[in-house]
Amino acid sequence: MKTETTIHGLAASLNPARHAKKLIGFVPTMGNLHEGHLNLVREAKKICDLVVVSIFVNPTQFGPNEDFDNYPRTLDQDSHLLADVGCDIVFAPAVEQMFAKEPRKTNIQVTEITQGLCGHARPGHFDGVALIVTKLFNIVQPNYAFFGQKDFQQLVIVQQLVRDLNMPLEVIGVPTTRAEDGLALSSRNGYLTVEERALAPQIYASLNHAKVFLEQGEALKDILEKMKNDLTTSGFEIDYVEARTPELETVLHFDQDIVLFVAARLGKTRLIDNLRVNVPT
Amino acid sequence: MKTETTIHGLAASLNPARHAKKLIGFVPTMGNLHEGHLNLVREAKKICDLVVVSIFVNPTQFGPNEDFDNYPRTLDQDSHLLADVGCDIVFAPAVEQMFAKEPRKTNIQVTEITQGLCGHARPGHFDGVALIVTKLFNIVQPNYAFFGQKDFQQLVIVQQLVRDLNMPLEVIGVPTTRAEDGLALSSRNGYLTVEERALAPQIYASLNHAKVFLEQGEALKDILEKMKNDLTTSGFEIDYVEARTPELETVLHFDQDIVLFVAARLGKTRLIDNLRVNVPT
Repeated sequence: MKTETTIHGLAASLNPARHAKKLIGFVPTMGNLHEGHLNLVREAKKICDLVVVSIFVNPTQFGPNEDFDNYPRTLDQDSHLLADVGCDIVFAPAVEQMFAKEPRKTNIQVTEITQGLCGHARPGHFDGVALIVTKLFNIVQPNYAFFGQKDFQQLVIVQQLVRDLNMPLEVIGVPTTRAEDGLALSSRNGYLTVEERALAPQIYASLNHAKVFLEQGEALKDILEKMKNDLTTSGFEIDYVEARTPELETVLHFDQDIVLFVAARLGKTRLIDNLRVNVPT
Repeated sequence: MKTETTIHGLAASLNPARHAKKLIGFVPTMGNLHEGHLNLVREAKKICDLVVVSIFVNPTQFGPNEDFDNYPRTLDQDSHLLADVGCDIVFAPAVEQMFAKEPRKTNIQVTEITQGLCGHARPGHFDGVALIVTKLFNIVQPNYAFFGQKDFQQLVIVQQLVRDLNMPLEVIGVPTTRAEDGLALSSRNGYLTVEERALAPQIYASLNHAKVFLEQGEALKDILEKMKNDLTTSGFEIDYVEARTPELETVLHFDQDIVLFVAARLGKTRLIDNLRVNVPT
């Protein structure tokens, strides 16, 4: 496995493979890797000849009061994990590589589907994601890019971005990797105290209960209300509990396939999860 | 010369060349071609193995009261001209190819340098340019793209866009092609009456006089004022007469290299031109 820290070095490593028509897979990450990331790499290995993983904590997707400075940087450990799952190239640029000294003047906005859900609590977050993803796609020029379904809104936004700008690649969503007790794996889980960690699986449990109730015919509105109440009672501070279509359009009734979304805080840690519920056929 | 009207067809035509490591040059146009466009193709031929010219009248860069519907579409004539200068592939997509039925949600903005000059009279114009250029670059994936210096602000904006988004290509500015009397070639010159056509070269003459006065030490502010007065007296309706740095920053004095810009109307036709003036060394 090679590690490249410059755009120039990465191009030099990738161009021979590109010219040999190898299929290039790309997994963008912010490092501090867990099994969820490694499963993205494993999926990429299945259909690509060569897999690039980027490790870059992107300043433009953090808000002023968010955890950019404290976000864990664990490159050595991440590199070992990536080598074990067959990653071919790690791209770990410094901030100066990705954002040159000369002031940037270009912004990318994805409208509508960036509003609400995580777009509400994190203003500007998805503009930062759209920008860095576009830059990384142009630098890596992959055939396929892999994103986790845990960040479902991000996945749909990136797919829209790629479609709207005719980017020459396919974005693949990979099912969420979970701990045995159901908690969606996330780098931020490391912030949880032991007590909080014991409570955290209730988010996924709540989503699954909601699914059962929906399939039994209970009203969507009542179910969302019940989820909020139950999680609040358990000690979560609710950010949102919401249903959308898989294209992120608002939905009032369970008369089509939907995705249930939860974002909630335990102490200082913000957790998100989601579950798709298909209308019975 | 091949003509492709679909994104899929263009990819099929280009991929063998791309895999053979041919250098691909790209000249985006709105058709109604003149010697200025043909010179872009000639420049492209000098350094590229294969040249693609797109002909697409882009609805997103026209304002509601502009000439989108009446903009001349002359594909047959354009194709003959392009074949004569050695263009390899004409890409002439329908609007539905470039803008699918599904609503677009992604916008690109280049800030600061899109303000003022043509950005003032044509609000939203450069957002439309940034979007279509990004889409076309992603579709064609050229090594080099060629733009005329006549649209100097557009050239600088596209260069900024490419740099900010790390697009894997180089943007090359080609000097303005002029009629014998100095008028910058433009598709819109065809709108001029005989009388207007006789007056039109005064724009370039005015720029050249200004250059001489600057080099003689006259104050920039006075010169710009004189240009406005003279052109107005001659029958032009001034949109702007302005000086900027070559990076499009505002400039008050001729203490560095500058570009002089003119936009003015003759009847219903809006003409633009510019001239670089370097500080004497």
